[in-house]
Amino acid sequence: MRYFKCIVEYDGTSYSGWQRQKNTPHTIQEKIENALRIIAKEQIPVMAASRTDAGVHAYGQVIGFKMKSGIPLEKLSLAMNGLLPTDIRIKEAREVDQDFHPRFQAIGKIYNYYLDNRNIQSVFQRNYAYHIPIKLDISNMKKSSKYLIGTNDFSSFRASGCSAKSPVRTLKRIDVEKKDDFIRLEFEGDGFLYNMVRILTGTLVYAGMNKFTSLDVRDILDAQDRTLAGPTVPAHGLYLVKVFYGGK
Amino acid sequence: MRYFKCIVEYDGTSYSGWQRQKNTPHTIQEKIENALRIIAKEQIPVMAASRTDAGVHAYGQVIGFKMKSGIPLEKLSLAMNGLLPTDIRIKEAREVDQDFHPRFQAIGKIYNYYLDNRNIQSVFQRNYAYHIPIKLDISNMKKSSKYLIGTNDFSSFRASGCSAKSPVRTLKRIDVEKKDDFIRLEFEGDGFLYNMVRILTGTLVYAGMNKFTSLDVRDILDAQDRTLAGPTVPAHGLYLVKVFYGGK
Repeated sequence: MRYFKCIVEYDGTSYSGWQRQKNTPHTIQEKIENALRIIAKEQIPVMAASRTDAGVHAYGQVIGFKMKSGIPLEKLSLAMNGLLPTDIRIKEAREVDQDFHPRFQAIGKIYNYYLDNRNIQSVFQRNYAYHIPIKLDISNMKKSSKYLIGTNDFSSFRASGCSAKSPVRTLKRIDVEKKDDFIRLEFEGDGFLYNMVRILTGTLVYAGMNKFTSLDVRDILDAQDRTLAGPTVPAHGLYLVKVFYGGK
Repeated sequence: MRYFKCIVEYDGTSYSGWQRQKNTPHTIQEKIENALRIIAKEQIPVMAASRTDAGVHAYGQVIGFKMKSGIPLEKLSLAMNGLLPTDIRIKEAREVDQDFHPRFQAIGKIYNYYLDNRNIQSVFQRNYAYHIPIKLDISNMKKSSKYLIGTNDFSSFRASGCSAKSPVRTLKRIDVEKKDDFIRLEFEGDGFLYNMVRILTGTLVYAGMNKFTSLDVRDILDAQDRTLAGPTVPAHGLYLVKVFYGGK
């Protein structure tokens, strides 16, 4: 048996998210498992580092699977890309130890959230950035983001459907970068609660609209109360950028 | 009667080009005329600076039309954007003199062509840049582009369907810019023959593959023979960026 780890990029626009579902064939997992079934001539279950929601994109999703197929490693991503739709690409494939698990062994992740802050929505970013026509106060967003960094109870930034046992996570950094009319928020942490990046972003957007001061954002974190934080911003601005593993 | 000039941005992916056609409702002109018909309560013919082909995008297409509607100018683009699909946006609208014609009065244009030079095609650029997996020699592309600048007979870079009377155009500049794995070619000129930007790009791509030396490119221009130039690259990498008019 051989064990594989792949880095996957996808445009989530047309998909109901990562996870295979009974009622729709439009999931990333289904497309990848279909490609592997043709290569391996048997059903190959595929695990992902993050079960991204409908509409969420990935530059660097990590998947893991095992198969008996004798396909040379250097041919694997070519073969998979030949069978996958063009909105899903295998960027890298390698063989790993049998104990590799893309989700349980992840020790950190980077997510990006893109905002289109142009007066008129960009036609090219309409599926790739959340449009907010009101000019955002970047300096208040940066200031507010500082209060969120560190090892904290993130209950205020956790969707009600979240099944994680502990609401404590370590948020290593939030970078807020503006280029022309587009704003990129980069979040790096050891792990994220369900919808955490989207609620953090919604809260920072409120800071950008000066609905929250930076001290309000600090108080929202301290209150451990989801109802006080900003809205959950839409999925289509969110990107899974990188997943970190130990030992390299 | 009032006369209008608007700047339009569109994602050409879903359209059969600018120009209204009998067999498809999917043209930019049709969508804009439909929106204006609702606003003006009559059919309003719309002219464009450039009749872009199927799949071609625009950051700055310029359109002109006249109508009797009393809609306040500051409401016009809002009203049009409310009626248009999200892949077509009116970025700016103003009232102009009755002699304004977006095509005949244009004195210059800027086009961009985007290349995705990544090993694996970017999922996010698949409709917005032409993927060439072979690493291109940027320095030879830049060197070759110099020979194309100036007032020249561009017969070698003119599609057979071109109806222009003269093949002479003035190409003011070609900028070749690389950022990460993406290459942007910017063409500025007083006007362009049919498919000229796409054939110039195809020729510079061949220079980037070292199929042509820069002196070959010079000779291709001099030969005034389309069969010697590079291929017509696909429409989906092409953008109409800006149209210039005299007197401002």
